[in-house]
Amino acid sequence: MQGIPPLLKEAMRYSLLAGGKRLRPVLVLATVEALGGEETAALPFACAIEMIHTYSLIHDDLPSMDDDDYRRGKLTNHKVFSEAYAILAGDALLTEAFGLMAKGGKEAALAPEILLTIIEEGARFAGARGMVGGQVDDLLGENGAVSLEQLESIHRRKTGDLMAYSVRTGAYLGGASPEVLESLTRFAYDLGLAFQIQDDILDVIGDQQVIGKPVGSDEEKHKATYPALLGLEESKRKLTEITNRAKRHVEGYEELNPASLMGIADYLLQRDR
Amino acid sequence: MQGIPPLLKEAMRYSLLAGGKRLRPVLVLATVEALGGEETAALPFACAIEMIHTYSLIHDDLPSMDDDDYRRGKLTNHKVFSEAYAILAGDALLTEAFGLMAKGGKEAALAPEILLTIIEEGARFAGARGMVGGQVDDLLGENGAVSLEQLESIHRRKTGDLMAYSVRTGAYLGGASPEVLESLTRFAYDLGLAFQIQDDILDVIGDQQVIGKPVGSDEEKHKATYPALLGLEESKRKLTEITNRAKRHVEGYEELNPASLMGIADYLLQRDR
Repeated sequence: MQGIPPLLKEAMRYSLLAGGKRLRPVLVLATVEALGGEETAALPFACAIEMIHTYSLIHDDLPSMDDDDYRRGKLTNHKVFSEAYAILAGDALLTEAFGLMAKGGKEAALAPEILLTIIEEGARFAGARGMVGGQVDDLLGENGAVSLEQLESIHRRKTGDLMAYSVRTGAYLGGASPEVLESLTRFAYDLGLAFQIQDDILDVIGDQQVIGKPVGSDEEKHKATYPALLGLEESKRKLTEITNRAKRHVEGYEELNPASLMGIADYLLQRDR
Repeated sequence: MQGIPPLLKEAMRYSLLAGGKRLRPVLVLATVEALGGEETAALPFACAIEMIHTYSLIHDDLPSMDDDDYRRGKLTNHKVFSEAYAILAGDALLTEAFGLMAKGGKEAALAPEILLTIIEEGARFAGARGMVGGQVDDLLGENGAVSLEQLESIHRRKTGDLMAYSVRTGAYLGGASPEVLESLTRFAYDLGLAFQIQDDILDVIGDQQVIGKPVGSDEEKHKATYPALLGLEESKRKLTEITNRAKRHVEGYEELNPASLMGIADYLLQRDR
């Protein structure tokens, strides 16, 4: 086995280390913590999910997809390394993510049953039924009017599924009961929805310097957004409502200390980027 | 969890079911058989590796990569479904491949240690150090003169690594000893090399109707090939030599009945497509 070709490594690191909120790894670790589990053993999974998220951003930004030049205030991967490298860097990040989970789980001597469930769900939530399916629906949606239901369905897959996967991974690692696993999943989907509504709001009223991409780009691209469908004020009201609903999902369980998870929900409500 | 968007499913199936030699799944199964193992339990892995191979072909054919219009006598994925769909169909196939291995292995009640090793090696042989790295080197090679050593290094990653992975997966499933695992790996790398030499030869002397893509396309694209570097006759001689060397690697082990594996090597030597 040989090393990673230097330019490929650079392209992978460029996007992986481009900053961002690290929301998904934070969700993995916060969920483990909320259940009183061992956070160190969860680190490879937190990293792997960030790698999956990063690959999806690199591919989404490609000229044949969303055709974005900037992401997090930096040129997108293909603008720096070329389209071919961006595709391959994404492919490599996705592939290595699964390897990291198998390796990390083996080294941490996790129960194999749990580890295999996490890997299997990774493919389900990130794959054709999940995140990739959401990107397909999103592409199809660009060609016509999108209803609120369709918009939520797209976001549920495109953003929600990987957030749900993050929280579920933490739940498996932290030994959650089936009931709490289910509630944590609902929490994550609501969090993903709130996240997306806030994203759409920030695209209207945000500060370009802070959010790192041009403000108003959604409208320019005629993208379906919450402000476009509901108006700005109603979108803000919905954001608060969904955030509160998310927090209620994780309240009242003896096995779960929800402080950090609620903190994440509050942070997302207030974020300006 | 929702279903797969119909058009995504169609794009995935289009390339997965486009025919081809199914060499990698055949190698998985033949290796299990050679070791007297249980072939049924190996089927999910054989399918998963074919999915990884198919994703790599879809992405390699993209306009920003090799820009090929035909593959196996049919239009390439992006020519039928668009570039965006081809990227996403590839992403989905790669993702689902790992899920299939985790799910299939769990259902077959395989020893988790073995299963996790197979998944981990999948990422290593198909990822940045392996197949994806080979495609990067191949892209770089297009910009200048390539020596015989560089050409073999590219093919070792681009073709050899996934063949080695196929055989190693069969070896793990069939319970090979470390020594036989090593010999089977050497067999696979030589087989991959022979395969590539034969591919290059067929691009010069093959029948376009049979091989399913235009003859002479390598020369037209100024691709480094064995005939270009060694001449046609020397390439044919080398093909026979490497094939014989491959076969010798799997001879003489009590635990291994090499008949099918040798049959595959002979078939590849004689193939016209």
